[in-house]
Amino acid sequence: MEIINGNLKSFKERRFPEKICFKPIGVIHSPFKSLKGIPIQPTMSKTSGMIEIFAEYQDGLKDLEGFSYIYCLYVFDMVKLPVPLLSKPFLQNELKGVFSIRTPFRPNPIGLSLLEISEINKNVIKVNNIDVLDKTPVLDIKPYVPQFDFRETDKIGWLKNKIRDKIS
Amino acid sequence: MEIINGNLKSFKERRFPEKICFKPIGVIHSPFKSLKGIPIQPTMSKTSGMIEIFAEYQDGLKDLEGFSYIYCLYVFDMVKLPVPLLSKPFLQNELKGVFSIRTPFRPNPIGLSLLEISEINKNVIKVNNIDVLDKTPVLDIKPYVPQFDFRETDKIGWLKNKIRDKIS
Repeated sequence: MEIINGNLKSFKERRFPEKICFKPIGVIHSPFKSLKGIPIQPTMSKTSGMIEIFAEYQDGLKDLEGFSYIYCLYVFDMVKLPVPLLSKPFLQNELKGVFSIRTPFRPNPIGLSLLEISEINKNVIKVNNIDVLDKTPVLDIKPYVPQFDFRETDKIGWLKNKIRDKIS
Repeated sequence: MEIINGNLKSFKERRFPEKICFKPIGVIHSPFKSLKGIPIQPTMSKTSGMIEIFAEYQDGLKDLEGFSYIYCLYVFDMVKLPVPLLSKPFLQNELKGVFSIRTPFRPNPIGLSLLEISEINKNVIKVNNIDVLDKTPVLDIKPYVPQFDFRETDKIGWLKNKIRDKIS
């Protein structure tokens, strides 16, 4: 969090927010028009899709074509709140805490997908491995940088020996 | 996005949202009480901090202690909107598109930090490498799983040859 240069609130104005609102910056276009058959993770997808960034934000895409991968943050907008705090992960039969699983049914249903850039044309990012429902609202795009974003670990909790490599 | 089982809206009700609101699920406690000296990335931090998950969400932390790392999603709540779509990344002098840099000054100022779990006590996650301002509102916690979250690439755009390993 590097935050010194820029337009900031003062600490005097700072109040812990009861709620925080965001405006979508774009929309995902994917072949997944219904909820069946959507891959569980981008690593399990070989399906192309597009992230349309709304024209007013297009300038923010400058320099992004130099990166292989992006984090795309989006909203699981089909999820009804509230959600249970314990739920069953995909293909598992035991209840897990919602913050230890990657289910869309989260108290704040924000999705995080690590997607490979295929090409960028004007305000559209074409990606190679989409795992998101068509017409999903996009909140943010960040470049993926292994030097910041990779940690080596085999401590992956209940997922140990449960990860399928199969493309679903 | 695995979304079949759970409480869902119908496609008939689905409207593209003008804005989306979230309630913080917790708050970050860190030694960084002002905006000076906050590390640029968790990889550049050796400072411990705590994520307090509000009591009503505590059950969601079940099973998380089995993981080494978490993604913490939070709000850069000191940032005033709107932000410029081109801005200068840390220690650089050229304007870059906001979606190709990791600045807090984003159209939707959502932060993503990959943090190492030190211990979990009740509703508090102690982490080893905090890079976030004290009293920052937390939106979500997800387990980090290298099999889902690592991509090998040296295509890191304008950051090529510019990454400092130094702890700041």
